[in-house]
Amino acid sequence: MRTPLCDEFGIEYPIFAFTPSEHVAAAVSRAGGLGVLGCVRFNDTEELERVLTWLDENTDGKPYGVDIVMPMKIPTEGTSVDLGAMIPEEHKKFVDETLLKLGVPPLPEGEGREGVLGWLHSVARSHLDVALQHRPVLIANALGSPPVDVIEKCHEHGIKVAALAGAAKHALSHVRNGVDIIVAQGYEAGGHTGEVASMVLQPDIVDAVGPDVPVLGAGGIGSGRQIAASLALGSQGAWMGSVWLGTTEYQQMGAANSEAWTTAFTRATSSDTVRTRVYTGKPARLLKTKWTEAWNEEGAPAPLPMPLQNLLVAEAHNRISAANDPDVISMPIGQIVGRMNEVRPVADVVADLVAEFEATVERLNAIRG
Amino acid sequence: MRTPLCDEFGIEYPIFAFTPSEHVAAAVSRAGGLGVLGCVRFNDTEELERVLTWLDENTDGKPYGVDIVMPMKIPTEGTSVDLGAMIPEEHKKFVDETLLKLGVPPLPEGEGREGVLGWLHSVARSHLDVALQHRPVLIANALGSPPVDVIEKCHEHGIKVAALAGAAKHALSHVRNGVDIIVAQGYEAGGHTGEVASMVLQPDIVDAVGPDVPVLGAGGIGSGRQIAASLALGSQGAWMGSVWLGTTEYQQMGAANSEAWTTAFTRATSSDTVRTRVYTGKPARLLKTKWTEAWNEEGAPAPLPMPLQNLLVAEAHNRISAANDPDVISMPIGQIVGRMNEVRPVADVVADLVAEFEATVERLNAIRG
Repeated sequence: MRTPLCDEFGIEYPIFAFTPSEHVAAAVSRAGGLGVLGCVRFNDTEELERVLTWLDENTDGKPYGVDIVMPMKIPTEGTSVDLGAMIPEEHKKFVDETLLKLGVPPLPEGEGREGVLGWLHSVARSHLDVALQHRPVLIANALGSPPVDVIEKCHEHGIKVAALAGAAKHALSHVRNGVDIIVAQGYEAGGHTGEVASMVLQPDIVDAVGPDVPVLGAGGIGSGRQIAASLALGSQGAWMGSVWLGTTEYQQMGAANSEAWTTAFTRATSSDTVRTRVYTGKPARLLKTKWTEAWNEEGAPAPLPMPLQNLLVAEAHNRISAANDPDVISMPIGQIVGRMNEVRPVADVVADLVAEFEATVERLNAIRG
Repeated sequence: MRTPLCDEFGIEYPIFAFTPSEHVAAAVSRAGGLGVLGCVRFNDTEELERVLTWLDENTDGKPYGVDIVMPMKIPTEGTSVDLGAMIPEEHKKFVDETLLKLGVPPLPEGEGREGVLGWLHSVARSHLDVALQHRPVLIANALGSPPVDVIEKCHEHGIKVAALAGAAKHALSHVRNGVDIIVAQGYEAGGHTGEVASMVLQPDIVDAVGPDVPVLGAGGIGSGRQIAASLALGSQGAWMGSVWLGTTEYQQMGAANSEAWTTAFTRATSSDTVRTRVYTGKPARLLKTKWTEAWNEEGAPAPLPMPLQNLLVAEAHNRISAANDPDVISMPIGQIVGRMNEVRPVADVVADLVAEFEATVERLNAIRG
């Protein structure tokens, strides 16, 4: 399974793994794909510095990428205290009452979690500055084209820039800004996503940007059949995120609720996700749970815009994690969750993807006759 | 491009064309696929009788199918007068005021259209009785499994039964009822559709029903690349609907608004559809227009359940057709509308599908190496 991107990045397979876990990213790169570390969770750049140093040392010299989040519409800047003051009391009250109703206990005194600030441009720029001290081969931006000066800075360092797009017109705008690779993020994908499904979106974007701009298919990909489908649609590789949440390496992140979380995704079907603004303020696909359903009930307030919504729910997320209840989870994941039924090592997942891709092409050859 | 379904039905390509137009159905069957005539529009069984006789005579002896609509949850029965009495005044008022606001004139005295009654089980059974006097090789049910006695009746006549499914559990239930072929209808499809996109839904259903039950991929298919993707996902053929609305044969139906409609679909992108209950009472994907948007405005009533919603909007649909305004259309269509940019003969569409499928398999072979 080789496309021009394999030579471009010095990888064996055009399998790109978006993951918040350095353990997963390293394992994918070692297995022949390209691990791409999501940086949005690092409010503290020193922690990112430590993690990238670990990546440098644990990838056997194989390439890796990083993913930052700079929304195209720049969110309001500020500290979490300044921004917190902008959150309406009605919303805070709804969150408190919902957690009470769902049986999610308060945190012990003194524990808490700051909301995610990684989508502020100031913070994302600090992520980039740290990353440039290491050896990423790819910088991806999860919410569209980064500013032109960021793209130019990456290019000066010989780093390719990828950007997610949920519609052909956005992809074209990214390319005009200088983006090198488009990640076509279909409706079925986990996290921030648009409304056009992969089957339609991928060829839309491939044809819009033309043969000189490689496209990665994203959304709904968890098997070799789905990689073959994506490549049939014209993509030059697969961008996968959700699937890695079901790996042994991901469990090394040691999330407080990993037991509840494993139960939740193992039993979920592809119908058990929902596209909602409750996680960040922008539409993102999450596991459907009592928490996401509560926001649909009569009387629930509309979610706040980014970055306020995540600050609003930051402590709730922490309480939910501590509660370890599979019915009350808050986790971005795609519709592929229906196929995540066991926890396996990354290397096994990659080997199966490649083998099933090959078997699928054989099958198509037989159909072609 | 041959799968076992080609031998099963005596067709050249596993391309199944769902269409309300006998002209399209006949042209697809003559071009080597299987035309499947949608019967829901026939409130008058004598008209269906005439149309099926025409199909018998215009398919050069090639096979064809018919599509009936029997919802799994049986709708309230009644004449359009009885049922009309169940529609709240608030809804009628909203429709009248909306049409006024959108500049859609009233119909000339004496003109009107009865609402669609084809999804009443009584009417769908009459469609079946008429069809059994002709030579369909396939009866498809657009809203799930038909009742077991209907399936048995088809089997007695040597006719295969297909049923649409939007989730694996529905597909399994159809198979338990005796359905022979599952149409996996993805989120991106036009008309009644679920929430799981094709990339995930097709392998879900293929694996759930096992190798003995053929699956047709539906939703987002309008090119040979998309057929290849669907077959890669494990389907044995493609079920396509929207694409035929952009053919010269469809225009022979002579819809009053065909000019406005052609303008509307030619300029639409894949982002210009919406999944809504305003057409029938069940979620269905339509072209997004001022009409569908009006139902999202503050103060708009929630759509009524099937069959009342379509009776409510029947006259509105007729007025909208007569108004011939591309901004105010009410038409089921899938996200593939973004690629429907010109009106072409069915035979050309089919030839391109086959050629692009073959080129795609070549491309995948090169990637496989």
